Amino acid sequence: MYCSLPPEYVSLRRSLRELQDLDFALSLMYWDRQTYMPDGGAIARGDQAATLQRLLHEKATAPELGDTLEALRDFEDSQPYSSIEASTIRIARRDYTRKVAVPSEFEARLAAHQNVCYAAWAAAREASDFAIVRPALEKTLDLSLEFASFFPQAAHPADPAIDAIDPGATVGQLRRLFGQLREPLVELLGAIEASGRSRDDTLLRQPFETNIQQDFCRKTLERIGYDFQRGRLDETMHPFTVSCSADDVRLTNRVIPEDLSESVFCSLHEMGHGLYEQGLDPALRGTPLAAGTSSGMHEAQARLWENTIGRSRAFWECCFPWLQGAFIRQLGKASVGEFYSAVNVVRRSAQRTSADEVTYNLHVTIRFELELAMLEGKLAIADLPDAWNAAYARDLGVTPPNDREGVLQDVHWYGHRIGGQFQGYALGNLIAAQLYETALQTHPEIPVDLERGRFSTLLDWLGRNVYRYGRKFTATELLERTTGRVLQIEPLVDGLTRKYEQVYGL
Amino acid sequence: MYCSLPPEYVSLRRSLRELQDLDFALSLMYWDRQTYMPDGGAIARGDQAATLQRLLHEKATAPELGDTLEALRDFEDSQPYSSIEASTIRIARRDYTRKVAVPSEFEARLAAHQNVCYAAWAAAREASDFAIVRPALEKTLDLSLEFASFFPQAAHPADPAIDAIDPGATVGQLRRLFGQLREPLVELLGAIEASGRSRDDTLLRQPFETNIQQDFCRKTLERIGYDFQRGRLDETMHPFTVSCSADDVRLTNRVIPEDLSESVFCSLHEMGHGLYEQGLDPALRGTPLAAGTSSGMHEAQARLWENTIGRSRAFWECCFPWLQGAFIRQLGKASVGEFYSAVNVVRRSAQRTSADEVTYNLHVTIRFELELAMLEGKLAIADLPDAWNAAYARDLGVTPPNDREGVLQDVHWYGHRIGGQFQGYALGNLIAAQLYETALQTHPEIPVDLERGRFSTLLDWLGRNVYRYGRKFTATELLERTTGRVLQIEPLVDGLTRKYEQVYGL
Repeated sequence: MYCSLPPEYVSLRRSLRELQDLDFALSLMYWDRQTYMPDGGAIARGDQAATLQRLLHEKATAPELGDTLEALRDFEDSQPYSSIEASTIRIARRDYTRKVAVPSEFEARLAAHQNVCYAAWAAAREASDFAIVRPALEKTLDLSLEFASFFPQAAHPADPAIDAIDPGATVGQLRRLFGQLREPLVELLGAIEASGRSRDDTLLRQPFETNIQQDFCRKTLERIGYDFQRGRLDETMHPFTVSCSADDVRLTNRVIPEDLSESVFCSLHEMGHGLYEQGLDPALRGTPLAAGTSSGMHEAQARLWENTIGRSRAFWECCFPWLQGAFIRQLGKASVGEFYSAVNVVRRSAQRTSADEVTYNLHVTIRFELELAMLEGKLAIADLPDAWNAAYARDLGVTPPNDREGVLQDVHWYGHRIGGQFQGYALGNLIAAQLYETALQTHPEIPVDLERGRFSTLLDWLGRNVYRYGRKFTATELLERTTGRVLQIEPLVDGLTRKYEQVYGL
Repeated sequence: MYCSLPPEYVSLRRSLRELQDLDFALSLMYWDRQTYMPDGGAIARGDQAATLQRLLHEKATAPELGDTLEALRDFEDSQPYSSIEASTIRIARRDYTRKVAVPSEFEARLAAHQNVCYAAWAAAREASDFAIVRPALEKTLDLSLEFASFFPQAAHPADPAIDAIDPGATVGQLRRLFGQLREPLVELLGAIEASGRSRDDTLLRQPFETNIQQDFCRKTLERIGYDFQRGRLDETMHPFTVSCSADDVRLTNRVIPEDLSESVFCSLHEMGHGLYEQGLDPALRGTPLAAGTSSGMHEAQARLWENTIGRSRAFWECCFPWLQGAFIRQLGKASVGEFYSAVNVVRRSAQRTSADEVTYNLHVTIRFELELAMLEGKLAIADLPDAWNAAYARDLGVTPPNDREGVLQDVHWYGHRIGGQFQGYALGNLIAAQLYETALQTHPEIPVDLERGRFSTLLDWLGRNVYRYGRKFTATELLERTTGRVLQIEPLVDGLTRKYEQVYGL
């Protein structure tokens, strides 16, 4: 045991703090670009971000940092696994090892190609013609395989990309999990269809003043417990959440006049991301532990507030009167039951982003399977549109009317890479359901509390059991600690089945 | 002559671009902090800015940069003085030489003390008691003299600080100039007082809706020629202009409900700064030439639009109907003449920031004289409040009612340093007058054009003769090139005399 912190640890903390400061500076640049930056600023902003990225990469892969981490092995072993010291060293080593594994030359080549492929995708989407982006996407596939080659110990070429954002998750595990998930969801969808119940969400498709929408969203988030002294809510085209520091967590929202559900559920979703970031243990500041632990765990926090809570009857028993007060002309005659039904309409569609809770995961698992097939060499890029349409026909019973609304709808493969792009969405839904099931076991009063506007019962439970740990535990570790089990499909499937049996009277 | 650019020049440009990118990142952080940052973000933002400042300082003082600049002496000499190449090397060497002259250890010590002194000033101001900040300000004086000691060739201890922001200007020159300025201004003020004409600006002190004010300001700036594709106008407490790149120049404005003149003249002032930055030759981008050439020249652009134009009869002949349309209830019955008189009220006051065109420079020259006396050891900090009040009694005929409205009113000495803090304001007024006089000689139609809303005559002249050069020429060089003369007091004194003879019927 050490009596005081070794100098290498002090030096490590200093270096890590510097990395984090640069990272936060980049976050601010990104936020500004998506919210207030004048159009003219785009090119220079790109250059500035590239400069900061380069400095950050140099510092994050500096050999001295590797030496410091090596020198700290004994100290790390002497500290408890969950101590800040051991965790900081462990996670810093993980980040360092991953970063130095990928040559800077490759990163530059990939980044340059991503710009080309993104532009080709934009053109292809405009023309609704996959052929325009096909050659660029073929090169993306090559580069995605080259990326995987830097991690020779990986069992599957998608594993390194998955591990980058969902540490510990593997193709083997996810394939099994997502495979189990598909059948019961397809069955539930069939049962809902067979019920013949009407699906009416015209209530949500009226003209709603955008400033009142944004005001309602802000007030609702404040009531739930989002801290606006340490955060913001702004408007943007493609909403996101970004931390400019632990005490400056910024949400964005998309507000459109003719669809109330967009701003309401989008702001609840981003708030979930934001609550996670605002709820980190302050002691983690300045360390790499001060962030969400995985893509799936982060998405889980968002989906939990957006769907598990935000589309629950209890939540609207509390919030519908507020909403009605804000939009008396549009909603004055509606009942909470009608509104609850409207926000829970299930329908077969070719679009992921607007999909309901039942079909959403099918959109995700289709993409996940397709990226694996491409990386395994079982699916040529030229055959991707057909494979996409076939999968949609099989799982969702719909055929996209064209490439734009089909294989070109998501930017992920075209703007980033193939592999590791989609699992986080489905993992998020699964994790959210499993966490909420456990929260309910500990606090069966949560639904009643929600009805009464007492959001703190759930929020405090999440803070204590999830938010505060940051990256100290992996998603798998956290889930086992909190729910006592590895990730399973039952909480999600059972929860959705119970809910939709009730909504659609199955 | 070189046939192509030497590799050292290419390397210099790369380094300079990196410095500029870091500087722009810091500008964005500053802008955000003053506009949209949630309160909770303040501490972390300070840390982040300090990290970027440190990286910037390391890179700006790197010995390799000095070597590169040395290696480029022959190339510099082979290029025309006003070429981008020679100018870039010249200004980069100037910046480098100045920066390496000051030890980093001193910078850190000064920065730490500035925080202490600023806090003491805030407390002293709150209590309206100079004694609270006296000990800290004494240390500031010591540090200001220590700063001067790093430039042993300086003739006066204020010269290095002045030269930092007004290159080439010296105490000797400024003392002469400001000395000449005082008497005619005091005389003019006396004549205005003696005229016995009423001073009525109650027209401006009505309740004006803040959103309409900001909207009017924005539209007016747009009509004048401010490019909102490459800029913004936001609200803040202490307005400023900052460039996040050459195509992203952000103005801020202070809008208060009970004083229309605040937002109108503040936005015109900041627009002047912004037009300068927006008007830089695009070829200067990425070089240290892409900025205003001095504090005085920058201020001149602001004061020219705020006062020379913004308080002219011609300008309001054009703009008053727009303003009247926006505030029909408040201004519907006023004439343009009444409004013109209201925005040109001259009164003796103890406050610099709200001072009129006649008295403003007296506020500045008082401060300038006091800082010189302190640095020369002729004025002890303990005697500063008395010296302040005596100077106000002598030049402005007023005695500040207390320390808060007297010696504590400006942050400059307390938050920065003693020396070089104020000359830019008076230089700005002098330069603005001399530039405008020359513009009128070339384009006597400017006032008529202004009346007709044709702002481009003046704007284009400023663009061609001032804005585009950036730091390629010093303020002195630019003034001689453009006006054919060194800086003189006559254009300002004659202009003000003519104007106020007319306004006050002297």
